[in-house]
Amino acid sequence: MSRRSLHTPAPDAAALRARLDRARSAAAAADTDALLIAPGSDLRYLLGQAGGSFERLTTLVVPADGVPALVVPKLEAPGYADVPTGDLGIELLTWVDGEDPYKLVADRLGKPGRVAVSDFTPALHVLALRAALGDAEQTLAGPVVRELRMRKDAAEIASLREAGAAIDRVHARVHEWLRPGRTEAEVGADIAAAIVEEGHERADFVIVGSGPNGASPHHDVSGRVIEKGDVVVVDIGGPLPAGYNSDSTRTYAVGTPRDADVAETYAVLQRAQAAAVAAVKPGVTAEQVDAAARDVIAEAGYGEYFIHRTGHGIGLDVHEEPYIIAGNALPLEPGMAFSVEPGIYQPGRWGARIEDIVVVTEDGVESVNNQPHELVVLDA
Amino acid sequence: MSRRSLHTPAPDAAALRARLDRARSAAAAADTDALLIAPGSDLRYLLGQAGGSFERLTTLVVPADGVPALVVPKLEAPGYADVPTGDLGIELLTWVDGEDPYKLVADRLGKPGRVAVSDFTPALHVLALRAALGDAEQTLAGPVVRELRMRKDAAEIASLREAGAAIDRVHARVHEWLRPGRTEAEVGADIAAAIVEEGHERADFVIVGSGPNGASPHHDVSGRVIEKGDVVVVDIGGPLPAGYNSDSTRTYAVGTPRDADVAETYAVLQRAQAAAVAAVKPGVTAEQVDAAARDVIAEAGYGEYFIHRTGHGIGLDVHEEPYIIAGNALPLEPGMAFSVEPGIYQPGRWGARIEDIVVVTEDGVESVNNQPHELVVLDA
Repeated sequence: MSRRSLHTPAPDAAALRARLDRARSAAAAADTDALLIAPGSDLRYLLGQAGGSFERLTTLVVPADGVPALVVPKLEAPGYADVPTGDLGIELLTWVDGEDPYKLVADRLGKPGRVAVSDFTPALHVLALRAALGDAEQTLAGPVVRELRMRKDAAEIASLREAGAAIDRVHARVHEWLRPGRTEAEVGADIAAAIVEEGHERADFVIVGSGPNGASPHHDVSGRVIEKGDVVVVDIGGPLPAGYNSDSTRTYAVGTPRDADVAETYAVLQRAQAAAVAAVKPGVTAEQVDAAARDVIAEAGYGEYFIHRTGHGIGLDVHEEPYIIAGNALPLEPGMAFSVEPGIYQPGRWGARIEDIVVVTEDGVESVNNQPHELVVLDA
Repeated sequence: MSRRSLHTPAPDAAALRARLDRARSAAAAADTDALLIAPGSDLRYLLGQAGGSFERLTTLVVPADGVPALVVPKLEAPGYADVPTGDLGIELLTWVDGEDPYKLVADRLGKPGRVAVSDFTPALHVLALRAALGDAEQTLAGPVVRELRMRKDAAEIASLREAGAAIDRVHARVHEWLRPGRTEAEVGADIAAAIVEEGHERADFVIVGSGPNGASPHHDVSGRVIEKGDVVVVDIGGPLPAGYNSDSTRTYAVGTPRDADVAETYAVLQRAQAAAVAAVKPGVTAEQVDAAARDVIAEAGYGEYFIHRTGHGIGLDVHEEPYIIAGNALPLEPGMAFSVEPGIYQPGRWGARIEDIVVVTEDGVESVNNQPHELVVLDA
């Protein structure tokens, strides 16, 4: 099959300028003098490009008040040629081996009171920046940047829909590969190829948890040979070229399930997932959505077998805010996107999970994944 | 072509125990109460497995004095089943969403004076650990762990030789793909496939810098169509299944070079690379090796066109200690492995680089890359 091409355009200069302005305001509102954004999703959100992440310091300096600057090793600067730094009013500050890039940042900021580093900045740079910035309080930029990234704009939601449809097409083809006698790894390789064929930039994760392996939520694939009667958890996804991720789980049965308790337990799981999705609307809190799923499972007596949160935000990262978990009192707002993925895990026997990515709308919820939720019983 | 299988076995429990013991001693010698090792190469070095890197805290707590503990989210614990934690005397401390993993680490350590976090620990965890550990001084584990990782043992050197031979086989095939009328991206895709075919786990980087793009040391590939007369820098590598990386650069000419100054300039580069390799032996410092290459280039009048350090260490990471750069007075020791890769870059016209990975021996140097150093002039 030829590879399907999905190319949502990268955000234009106007969109990026708006994000940069919102970042500045958010920094000011958080009483933070500057954000230091390392290569990764935050940088991609603000510049349209994730940058490279090496041991040499690259950081986007976003002062709450003043001109932003991209500090980058001279030999990596050509890689940022596509970034409209001029239109964005970003100054390019290059440095060469032997120079001190941390001092470059410090000189730029003067005597700041509080400087926030992006959440995935390597400790290597975190500690060096702390030393270079003397008395400045060092905090995380995540809480600031996530205020922006958590609320997707129309273009971002369109990308998530595209990603959802792409991974739905892969789930619709799983029956082609999931058969007794094949190993999880063989099935996973076929699925990974299909993830790319259906338009993803790459397969980011492929979980094929058959039989007892399904009871391990983060199992990936193994040499285990799939047997007739296995229940198989298939949790797959990856980024589209535009950077937005897919992530969807369905649970399959290879012929009639071996374990007698599958049908009843799966019905509880299906009710729990539906209840959580139904609970999603503006004003409802993240933990209320978690509780909506958890209560159904607990009341049915399976509480101890649901051993993870109900969901995670998704966008340029597979895991980002908002997290759908007890203790998160964040009220949902239109544009927020996250997974709803309760699971029930029977140690040593089998597991099941149902996962869709949903987006909060003005008055409720939209699911970007639309494959049936029933246990998919395959011929075997 | 079928994929070549290269499977250097993972280090056994005895080898891992020895590394863990050396890590403990190194921590004590550095007056550090504990090392906190995040998922990544440092963890792979100590446990034989890199672990996953998510927003949930996973860290190997290595006290200078006391029992090591692997703090890991309960749902990710099954992924560490292959780690001989029992033989290594490592206690497994799992946590579930809602619990505070940082407090788990702090309770484990009591009131430490100094705690070192591995260099690539995300800021997210760095700041939370700092807060949880109260008055403890927070430093980087890199300087401690690199004392171990920098000195490769026989098994590691064997892996680097295997990686060097694998990437040499790819360079030997570049003439099959590098032709006028093809884009850098097309050539790069063929090279990437060959990197896997020759036994790598994946192609980690593929630089095909043709004509003016060759003057940008970190250019990867582009849609530029290769023309007759282009000089092309091909810098490629990736990890073998055992985790050790290859990294080698050769410079090709597609027919007779367009620019008249190529032959003379390239001869200078070749002399510089040879001089740096010849300078390598125990006791010589990293900066002396850098100077050996730089002096040749500077004396020939091309100093301003050599815009990066001469090399970087290599092992489980493509870039690690020791760095071959001015200011690094580290005396070389047997078992140290690094690249020797001077380059000369003519902005807007062409660039050239020659890169081999070398290992310091008892009395000199061994190169794990052995393709000819001459400019490779291809038919066109």
